[in-house]
Amino acid sequence: MIRFNNDYSEGAHPKILEKLIQTNDEQTAGYGEDEYCHQAAGLIRKLCCNENADVHFIVGGTQTNLIVISAALRPHQCVLSASSGHISVHETGAIEATGHKVIALPDTDGKINAEQIEQTWLDHIHDESFEHITQPRLVYISNPTEYGTIYSKKELSEISRVCRKYGLYLYMDGARLGYGLCAKGNDLDLPFIAECCDVFYIGGTKIGALFGEAVVIGNEELKKDFRYIIKQRGAMLAKGRLLGLQFIALFEDNLYFEISEHVVALAEKVRDIFAENGYPFLYPSPTNQQFPILPDAVLPALKEKYAFSTWQKFDADHTVVRFCTSWATKEESVAALREDIRRLPK
Amino acid sequence: MIRFNNDYSEGAHPKILEKLIQTNDEQTAGYGEDEYCHQAAGLIRKLCCNENADVHFIVGGTQTNLIVISAALRPHQCVLSASSGHISVHETGAIEATGHKVIALPDTDGKINAEQIEQTWLDHIHDESFEHITQPRLVYISNPTEYGTIYSKKELSEISRVCRKYGLYLYMDGARLGYGLCAKGNDLDLPFIAECCDVFYIGGTKIGALFGEAVVIGNEELKKDFRYIIKQRGAMLAKGRLLGLQFIALFEDNLYFEISEHVVALAEKVRDIFAENGYPFLYPSPTNQQFPILPDAVLPALKEKYAFSTWQKFDADHTVVRFCTSWATKEESVAALREDIRRLPK
Amino acid sequence: MIRFNNDYSEGAHPKILEKLIQTNDEQTAGYGEDEYCHQAAGLIRKLCCNENADVHFIVGGTQTNLIVISAALRPHQCVLSASSGHISVHETGAIEATGHKVIALPDTDGKINAEQIEQTWLDHIHDESFEHITQPRLVYISNPTEYGTIYSKKELSEISRVCRKYGLYLYMDGARLGYGLCAKGNDLDLPFIAECCDVFYIGGTKIGALFGEAVVIGNEELKKDFRYIIKQRGAMLAKGRLLGLQFIALFEDNLYFEISEHVVALAEKVRDIFAENGYPFLYPSPTNQQFPILPDAVLPALKEKYAFSTWQKFDADHTVVRFCTSWATKEESVAALREDIRRLPK
Amino acid sequence: MIRFNNDYSEGAHPKILEKLIQTNDEQTAGYGEDEYCHQAAGLIRKLCCNENADVHFIVGGTQTNLIVISAALRPHQCVLSASSGHISVHETGAIEATGHKVIALPDTDGKINAEQIEQTWLDHIHDESFEHITQPRLVYISNPTEYGTIYSKKELSEISRVCRKYGLYLYMDGARLGYGLCAKGNDLDLPFIAECCDVFYIGGTKIGALFGEAVVIGNEELKKDFRYIIKQRGAMLAKGRLLGLQFIALFEDNLYFEISEHVVALAEKVRDIFAENGYPFLYPSPTNQQFPILPDAVLPALKEKYAFSTWQKFDADHTVVRFCTSWATKEESVAALREDIRRLPK
Repeated sequence: MIRFNNDYSEGAHPKILEKLIQTNDEQTAGYGEDEYCHQAAGLIRKLCCNENADVHFIVGGTQTNLIVISAALRPHQCVLSASSGHISVHETGAIEATGHKVIALPDTDGKINAEQIEQTWLDHIHDESFEHITQPRLVYISNPTEYGTIYSKKELSEISRVCRKYGLYLYMDGARLGYGLCAKGNDLDLPFIAECCDVFYIGGTKIGALFGEAVVIGNEELKKDFRYIIKQRGAMLAKGRLLGLQFIALFEDNLYFEISEHVVALAEKVRDIFAENGYPFLYPSPTNQQFPILPDAVLPALKEKYAFSTWQKFDADHTVVRFCTSWATKEESVAALREDIRRLPK
Repeated sequence: MIRFNNDYSEGAHPKILEKLIQTNDEQTAGYGEDEYCHQAAGLIRKLCCNENADVHFIVGGTQTNLIVISAALRPHQCVLSASSGHISVHETGAIEATGHKVIALPDTDGKINAEQIEQTWLDHIHDESFEHITQPRLVYISNPTEYGTIYSKKELSEISRVCRKYGLYLYMDGARLGYGLCAKGNDLDLPFIAECCDVFYIGGTKIGALFGEAVVIGNEELKKDFRYIIKQRGAMLAKGRLLGLQFIALFEDNLYFEISEHVVALAEKVRDIFAENGYPFLYPSPTNQQFPILPDAVLPALKEKYAFSTWQKFDADHTVVRFCTSWATKEESVAALREDIRRLPK
Repeated sequence: MIRFNNDYSEGAHPKILEKLIQTNDEQTAGYGEDEYCHQAAGLIRKLCCNENADVHFIVGGTQTNLIVISAALRPHQCVLSASSGHISVHETGAIEATGHKVIALPDTDGKINAEQIEQTWLDHIHDESFEHITQPRLVYISNPTEYGTIYSKKELSEISRVCRKYGLYLYMDGARLGYGLCAKGNDLDLPFIAECCDVFYIGGTKIGALFGEAVVIGNEELKKDFRYIIKQRGAMLAKGRLLGLQFIALFEDNLYFEISEHVVALAEKVRDIFAENGYPFLYPSPTNQQFPILPDAVLPALKEKYAFSTWQKFDADHTVVRFCTSWATKEESVAALREDIRRLPK
Repeated sequence: MIRFNNDYSEGAHPKILEKLIQTNDEQTAGYGEDEYCHQAAGLIRKLCCNENADVHFIVGGTQTNLIVISAALRPHQCVLSASSGHISVHETGAIEATGHKVIALPDTDGKINAEQIEQTWLDHIHDESFEHITQPRLVYISNPTEYGTIYSKKELSEISRVCRKYGLYLYMDGARLGYGLCAKGNDLDLPFIAECCDVFYIGGTKIGALFGEAVVIGNEELKKDFRYIIKQRGAMLAKGRLLGLQFIALFEDNLYFEISEHVVALAEKVRDIFAENGYPFLYPSPTNQQFPILPDAVLPALKEKYAFSTWQKFDADHTVVRFCTSWATKEESVAALREDIRRLPK
């Protein structure tokens, strides 16, 4: 079985594992207050060109989302998200479990835009009975989106401008941020993101770490007492250095971007394989998730050899599937896929 | 100013007020454990033909909704509602504040149907990552709906059947239930509703009471410890008899239905006034809320004499407005409206 | 049966009821935005000598407590309360249901003091693992306390000083505030309370109203978006004027203090009846709740004629009971009690 | 610096790390649905002699506590815990953040007993206003306790009997369970615990793992939909196999008990060092945490060479400190301590 079904099927990138092994016997403070976490935070601050940012390390993405959002909101406030946003559909109501509504905005290929946000804000605030509806206070976007698409500098700065105009926090979920930053056509970089967003996270789990997400908080209002909330939600890892160490490995020698570039390059090959054989795609993704639309007839054979996700029915005879690449995807797997797709009955 | 803007502008129907005055000096137990509450509950049980139903009295509708729903669900479970449902849009996220997501289903004139519910359930349960999405457990409908429309026996029993098939609780918000039951074309009655729904409430606030909603729980699973939840949510009225007394007044001599019939009859006149003058309606409401679509040009003059709600823009030159009738609406107010609408420039 | 069991057994004081009757047919805006609410708020601001205070009207005490507290706190913050505080023991965990821990401090006759608060704050903040424990942010006191005792000017100003020193909000639950202000030995008044507390409420339910508590917010930080929270918790009464009207009745002609003085005077008589016959008291209450310690042997006979609460066992042969007076307690009831207590076997 | 300050200062036991390294390149399903998790669950079921138990793996202890407890309770229900219980004091109100009160019972050396639980239950249920107080539904104990003490078979079975008598769930926090099971004087074992408790967890983080706790659910009522709650609370690890692998390493060859025995043996040596030199202890702990009471005068010198926790002041001149041993504690560290304590001025 050759696996293209997700980007977290294997353990960690060898360099990350090595770092854990090397330091295994050292004694450090617990709960993220060790030297490795401090060092990793410093690396990230530097890459973001924001020496004052607070950086916290958290084990997983849903955890990170619920902590950031519940730390930022008062009880009557809500989040705006693309209707396909991870918090909106794939976290078992984690945000609602902290008491807050997620308002789902219709998205275009996974993205929302400044105009929508402004209109939603105005609709809420100018409503005759505005106190009877939740008050938008935070905008959640993910980059890349759930559909693998990415925001441009122009789009992000417009969203940021609208958010600041109306006092909305902007939060970017960067579970696969590296893949976005290394995508063809991308013009974003970490300093620009750090400037536009009040808070965002750089995902490790899906980019070669065993686990771990690095939250970067730029807005002073959101910094206060953040570690209390991490603890309260059960997310303060006792051996917190495991997080610091992994992010050192990812960022001390550019490994994060090396992995990301490699993975995106493989994804482009996967995309080309389907494109060259005439299969269309549901979304124009330049990142590590590809969504080709395949005839139902070819699926059974393909499934015997490859693992991939069934995304949704497209029409009576076609299905959208998802192929992911990861740091562990092998060139020969892609080559095999090339052969097999070429041979499919047209 | 003649008010058609809502159905809670005045105090209580005189017979209700009289009951409160008569009993004012009596000493009773507190917190809904008095004789009047017991008597009112008995009257309602009888009208519902369900001697085993639990009946509780709560001050307001949002309170009732959040109590019923949070009492019924485990943390990971969610509610299905019409996208126009009161809990979905007009309760400042009260349900989410108790930890639960409200899934908004597209509605037709405010109503959802059995097929949608079934499809949503199946989509959730058959999803590959079903544990990553909330689990539907309760279906919320209102009758009449937010748009004044009503469910038929056929529609309600189909919904009920689907709910039972999949283990979903069915809950009806009856804030304006009387107007639904007295609407032309209605074929529902209290016993039928009590049979189809696991829990529902009979609204008092909008049908002549000072305040008060009567929750009727038929499903044994939902009965347990309900009063604890009422207290926890701050909804256990110290002088609970005030609720019992009002519902006795409403139900001992059929007052609830007398009021409802009268109010609906007035609403029909209001509807006819607009219809006869060629104005269309946004929704086909047979109850006490009417939604005519008026040219923007006529609104300023109309607003000087009448209070009514601005519902939404219809197109560049037209606006949907809402006219409500209530127990206190006077025949002469309707007559005046007739004259004024007739005189509007066509 | 002569009832001394609580202060909410009857309906409303006649002057309050009269106000409701007089205005019953008037049409007003809903949700507390009517003229009566504005007028009542103005009266209260004036009595508190704080023209900038925000005043909101809420139906019940538990509701008020959970709204005020959840509006004031971030998720990791907690409340300090006397261990006998209403929020700590008698609200079915209503505060915890909004996500916040209540830290119970040992009390003396229901009261806590500045030193305790300071020590608790310092203990929390100086703890090695301070982020692993909740952060105190609000101090809850009630006046009179659950045991009928009252705070002095000196005590309250010391508490207020400590709270301001450490950035803690001070909140007074005044469910029976009038009885405290009219007690012998009291030196507090509304302006002093308004100055010392960031927020407090003046209780109506237990001082002659049908229901209703008036929240007075002095601290700017606590004012923002308060009505959203009221709505979210299901506490925004549709016919909100009912609250405004009752507080006008209570405060336009000093009725609140007339009732309070009368009730306290009756309570003093009740206290003297027990004292003169040699019965001791569990708490030195100068307000409308009295806690005599009676021999178990006399209880059965007493219970046949009088309703009162069994508070707790005192020792093998004695029980503490609670006698309350209210606006509706009659002089002849007190006289009867005098006779019956005198005749008890000594 | 020789560290005795806690049991999570280092990475993982070498055998655990080795397992992660060996399997790093394998591709598995995510979210705990891989073969390793299944295998680890099987090993634990077998050791517990309960083939029907559900076993789930979660990253950390606070997370586990909040998931288990919020999954088990309805909104009005509360937990009984020792006042020193971890959930009561050291989780930043994590349980309250899920909506539930923790009732703190006075403990004896960290333990609570059957009689207390019964009395608390009866007090709640027989209270006149029982619906105004939270309803106890789950009893939380930890073994070893926060003070290192352990429950006996007799104590645990009495607690279990009372819990079943009144319908209370019994939940044991086993963050350091191995140390309890290997303590001198212990008569508990896993099958007995599995029989007495409705749910408990076997801690990995503090017994040699990088992280991880294994929840064992015996009671059918608590099994349903448990994975939804794990996901909702952000605790479903993407690379879930990391948890399965570690628990395989701990339980396939008895490593868990080997580590535990070794650590306890070292702790006994530490205890003897202090005892032989005449220092008393605050608690009679037979496990890996020791609480000697030292003169303040000796602390500064000791702190230069050793890391240990300051527990609390004992009296004007003495302080209680905590020394922990762990899988990584070296014999030579203990020997050094022996010399240094012997030389302290008496």
